Amino acid sequence: MVLERVKQLASHLTGHSGPPHPFDPLTAKEIEKAVAIVNSEHQGLFYNTVTLWEPRKVEMMAWLADPDHNVRPHRVADVVAIGRGSKVYDGLVDLEEGKIVRWELTEGVQPLITMEDLQIVETVVRKDPGVIEQCRLIGIPPGDMHKVYCDPWTIGYDERFGSKVRLQQALMYYRPHVDDSQYTYPLDFCPIFNADTQEIVHIDVPKVRRPLNQAPPTNFHAEAIKANGGYRTDLKPINITQPEGVSFTVEGRILKWQNWSFHVGFNHREGIVLSNITYNDKGNVRPVFYRISLAEMVVPYGNPEHPHQRKHAFDLGEYGGGYMTNSLALGCDCKGAIHYMDAAFVNRAGESQIIKNAICVHEEDAGILFKHTDFRDDSCTVTRARKLVVSHVFTAANYEYCVYWIFHQDGTIQLEVKLTGILNTYSLNPGESAGPWGTEVYPGVNAHNHQHLFCLRLDPNIDGSANTVYVADAAASDAPLGSAENKYGNAFYAKKTKLETQAGSVSDYDGSTSRTWDMANTNKMNVYSHKPVSYKLVSREVPSLLPKEGSLVWKRAGFARHAVHVTKYNDDQIHPAGRHVPQTSGDPSQGLPAWIAADPDANIDNTDIVLWHTFGLTHFPAPEDYPVMPAEPMIVLLRPRNFFTQNPAMDVPPSYSSTPSQVAAGKRGLSGVIDGMSRLAFGGGREKGGSLDQEV
Amino acid sequence: MVLERVKQLASHLTGHSGPPHPFDPLTAKEIEKAVAIVNSEHQGLFYNTVTLWEPRKVEMMAWLADPDHNVRPHRVADVVAIGRGSKVYDGLVDLEEGKIVRWELTEGVQPLITMEDLQIVETVVRKDPGVIEQCRLIGIPPGDMHKVYCDPWTIGYDERFGSKVRLQQALMYYRPHVDDSQYTYPLDFCPIFNADTQEIVHIDVPKVRRPLNQAPPTNFHAEAIKANGGYRTDLKPINITQPEGVSFTVEGRILKWQNWSFHVGFNHREGIVLSNITYNDKGNVRPVFYRISLAEMVVPYGNPEHPHQRKHAFDLGEYGGGYMTNSLALGCDCKGAIHYMDAAFVNRAGESQIIKNAICVHEEDAGILFKHTDFRDDSCTVTRARKLVVSHVFTAANYEYCVYWIFHQDGTIQLEVKLTGILNTYSLNPGESAGPWGTEVYPGVNAHNHQHLFCLRLDPNIDGSANTVYVADAAASDAPLGSAENKYGNAFYAKKTKLETQAGSVSDYDGSTSRTWDMANTNKMNVYSHKPVSYKLVSREVPSLLPKEGSLVWKRAGFARHAVHVTKYNDDQIHPAGRHVPQTSGDPSQGLPAWIAADPDANIDNTDIVLWHTFGLTHFPAPEDYPVMPAEPMIVLLRPRNFFTQNPAMDVPPSYSSTPSQVAAGKRGLSGVIDGMSRLAFGGGREKGGSLDQEV
Ligand SMILES: [Co+2]
Ligand SMILES: [Co+2]
Repeated sequence: MVLERVKQLASHLTGHSGPPHPFDPLTAKEIEKAVAIVNSEHQGLFYNTVTLWEPRKVEMMAWLADPDHNVRPHRVADVVAIGRGSKVYDGLVDLEEGKIVRWELTEGVQPLITMEDLQIVETVVRKDPGVIEQCRLIGIPPGDMHKVYCDPWTIGYDERFGSKVRLQQALMYYRPHVDDSQYTYPLDFCPIFNADTQEIVHIDVPKVRRPLNQAPPTNFHAEAIKANGGYRTDLKPINITQPEGVSFTVEGRILKWQNWSFHVGFNHREGIVLSNITYNDKGNVRPVFYRISLAEMVVPYGNPEHPHQRKHAFDLGEYGGGYMTNSLALGCDCKGAIHYMDAAFVNRAGESQIIKNAICVHEEDAGILFKHTDFRDDSCTVTRARKLVVSHVFTAANYEYCVYWIFHQDGTIQLEVKLTGILNTYSLNPGESAGPWGTEVYPGVNAHNHQHLFCLRLDPNIDGSANTVYVADAAASDAPLGSAENKYGNAFYAKKTKLETQAGSVSDYDGSTSRTWDMANTNKMNVYSHKPVSYKLVSREVPSLLPKEGSLVWKRAGFARHAVHVTKYNDDQIHPAGRHVPQTSGDPSQGLPAWIAADPDANIDNTDIVLWHTFGLTHFPAPEDYPVMPAEPMIVLLRPRNFFTQNPAMDVPPSYSSTPSQVAAGKRGLSGVIDGMSRLAFGGGREKGGSLDQEV
Repeated sequence: MVLERVKQLASHLTGHSGPPHPFDPLTAKEIEKAVAIVNSEHQGLFYNTVTLWEPRKVEMMAWLADPDHNVRPHRVADVVAIGRGSKVYDGLVDLEEGKIVRWELTEGVQPLITMEDLQIVETVVRKDPGVIEQCRLIGIPPGDMHKVYCDPWTIGYDERFGSKVRLQQALMYYRPHVDDSQYTYPLDFCPIFNADTQEIVHIDVPKVRRPLNQAPPTNFHAEAIKANGGYRTDLKPINITQPEGVSFTVEGRILKWQNWSFHVGFNHREGIVLSNITYNDKGNVRPVFYRISLAEMVVPYGNPEHPHQRKHAFDLGEYGGGYMTNSLALGCDCKGAIHYMDAAFVNRAGESQIIKNAICVHEEDAGILFKHTDFRDDSCTVTRARKLVVSHVFTAANYEYCVYWIFHQDGTIQLEVKLTGILNTYSLNPGESAGPWGTEVYPGVNAHNHQHLFCLRLDPNIDGSANTVYVADAAASDAPLGSAENKYGNAFYAKKTKLETQAGSVSDYDGSTSRTWDMANTNKMNVYSHKPVSYKLVSREVPSLLPKEGSLVWKRAGFARHAVHVTKYNDDQIHPAGRHVPQTSGDPSQGLPAWIAADPDANIDNTDIVLWHTFGLTHFPAPEDYPVMPAEPMIVLLRPRNFFTQNPAMDVPPSYSSTPSQVAAGKRGLSGVIDGMSRLAFGGGREKGGSLDQEV
């Protein structure tokens, strides 16, 4: 065991000894090699993306099944570069052959906006005469332009400008002092920035002007809190320690923990990607998911006043959840024993850049895993749960998204997303009402209604890749009350509807039937229940898309129209709103709707499929969310149903376990694993325990 | 601070120095005093219940407002006793006046079944000739009757026997060995026990017989796990310690933590009751809820075969969540620094009995409370959350319910219920299908479909008792796409519908609109948002009641027909399925439907109201749930909306906080409160931190 840890440590410190795993993100060296290869043939490019072109699934499945005899997939870089005149090039570079294998000029698209693209805008805005004039009109003198800030967003889509020129819209703010939250001082106009010429090409000015907010700053930094009564002093520390280390192992990027094994990938766009997830079921390594990720999201805002319809950020497709990811810190973002993984990206100039500690891996205690007491004699087994959390946090301008992929001992995989950060705000005149499309969260600050809609891409591999999806609804029996079949009217069952074609797979949520979607392998029956082995998608935060049918958001974010779509697997279908999202018009819709429309009758029964699930929440802001928002969590569960033949966590050591015969004989049960650190809150040690202690 | 802890410790060890708080449960001495007073006038009684008759609200509110000048409510015992012939007496005993103030023979009702009532049945069943004969018929020889067990349930309601005789149904099982789980060996017949005569009065025998299951035992106790490969050995300890003690204080049963204050009550039926919940908002102590509790639940099973329609346990009203509560143990049920509270109940003979450590109070780290990074310079504030958990666990025959009342620093109150324990099972012949009303979870073991439906009673006191409930639905604008008001079709808002009368309050869940219910005080507007101060009920596990309209369960569990009912406050309306639940026929429905029917037009707008919320889940068993079920959690949130003027947790000390000016000056931010215990998983200490460390 010690040897194993030393080995891991060594591999962690020295880097991987062998070649990268085919699922591994491109290393810094690979990124630089790809750029060198491109630069040798093409000059004058800005690099937008150099990321892993993932192995084709058929090849990869073959290699995973027998790595010694099957061909190891090549390392290939997926390159997006931009030339002068907003010319976009999509390329593939085979790093093992050292050559470009595809290079295309792609017309009429705009690749995502990088952090560097964002950083440029503020500088330009401050110097633009039009912006300076607009600032002056609402009360900011030209000498104060250094106090003017902007959050540059993609323009989304604006029919006046189309898709050919690369544009950003600058959401404008002001800071009385450099440390003041700018979201208290939104400005009422919106400059549009041409990324190619690096100039402001238009300014949207509202008909009704809203001068600079005159309310005092409201901040949450230390000085502000100290000036307002100081920090509370009544919180005592809670220490979480793992003196013997962690219970997981890491080889390269393959994590193993509690019978789970999976590869942790990361890319600029989706952030964490988990691949080849398997569960060791008593020695039988069973595939569960080939690949899961958050593939897209959209945050439509609900204020119809022009140009707020442009506020509907696709944070993954337009900016990249990986590009925006935070470098995490020990003890700040997670507690206990932490394993970090870094992320390597390309910059505009084609150099590699590292975000240190981009991914956090750690364990947490997770309360009671199971408990049962026999009421006859108080014989009892109680077992505590552990969970493994793989997380990253990304900052999308004002908002923070904390993404937690959680593995449970009972076979459940959980995605938890926490929303925090700061509301996007707009200006409000004194006496003006923010309703019904927003809320005045602080004097002069209008926080618009919005939705956060995430698209979870699930590529199931439930005991193999031939899978089938059923919609499962809790349903009363059709037999009427009083009939022979249902005399007392209590009969109910799980009504399962098989999804058979791509077009027929489109389905909405139904809270009243506790609707779930079962991903099943109909070729393999559970030997006890005689039902297909399956994983169930349990998701309860599934709002309807509120922008109307035919609206701009509805057209651009086709994936968000319905809770679930199922497609036949296709290597090139990763991005449900399209490969290049900024400035898509939605005419026609890219991604998911297009793939389904292209082959509506494609069979999805008992074949390799992908399930796309849109979930999220509708956020009607309130003053409690301001000036910084307490984290609001959302949860999606993937639960094994008829997959195992019994509770797979029964061999987790219990905190305590006694049997009736032990109780009858006055013997203590198994208690060697009771935690010895817990104490009574007010004095005393362990002398005042409960029934279990009394049995001892 | 030390003095305060010594005082608490002293009061904890010596008991309360003063008289009990009017909300305190009856003490052991008070229970005995009440019994003595009753016994002095009435003889030959078995005691069913001696519990606190809670103070009338008007009196109590007056006393809470000014305890020095207003009358302290008397301590009054609510007594239920049973005489020979199943005669039920309801009484009230004023403990301060030392006299019975009400004593009534209540006809045609049956009070709940106590643990003692349950324990008797198994003994009787084993000796009953009819039962012995039925056992013989399915393969259990008379000499093995000591291996026969039963879970005695109330009969629910059986039209053949009515309500006059106190009856239980014995769900029959067998254990090959005393330590084997009996749920693998359900017997196919069902004896009915007369609690008055203590004999079996009938046996329900199915038309198709199902002989004793011949499958081998499946167990989760230590010997079974050891025989089947042993416990896993790869879990390293996670220690949670609070070296400086806890952050809450306890005076009597009043808990104070992070601006929250509330009284922790406990009764035999609801278990934990939280009263007079207030939040200290910068020195202003604001009432939030007068009283919240889990008031009732029902678990209807979905198999229509007679007599399974009788399986629909009202675990609180028919057995009592307090009576069935577990005595908790340090380090088994919760970790860290724990404060326990005991529970005192009466027994059948009228003596007091203590369940030690019935309630657990502890804190937990709760991950990120809020975080924001400025993408321009990586200046960042990140603050960790803490939560306070008040919990108990009760065992309802096969099932365990873990109830967690959780207080958050952001003003949220959360109820979490975890389901664990063992499935209720029934016998299945070889080759017989368990579907569609159940699942074969192990050979010969049929686990029937069922629902767990809980009724949460919320007595809001949002800045005072005059409150109003709104149904809130996310809704698109009525203005069509392309219209002047909604040109881009993106307009949406929170549609609020005021509930005005008791009958008009009945409302169902709508998952597609993310429906919530807002409990508001329309007399008090948030000064920033100009919206009424409110708490929002956020609940996403809200299945429809599946037993049909007019069915036995539908009639008996009227509260479960709809997600929300609102009633005008009435001191006597605590139990939504009625005061005495066993053997109610539902003709007419007791409790909530009766109260509303009695005064359908009663005004509930801007007055003292109670909101009743039914939530839960529909459980289609699978082999993963067997032989012991991994805990399945459900969550309900009560969230402040427009209640505070800002995030109320901004003064929680951050893990780290830096400002743009600090970053620009190369200074470190506020980091003194970063946890010093977290470590890297594989070797090394803190040297490889993230961005925050790099800034230092
Ligand atoms: Co939001
Ligand atoms: Co259940």
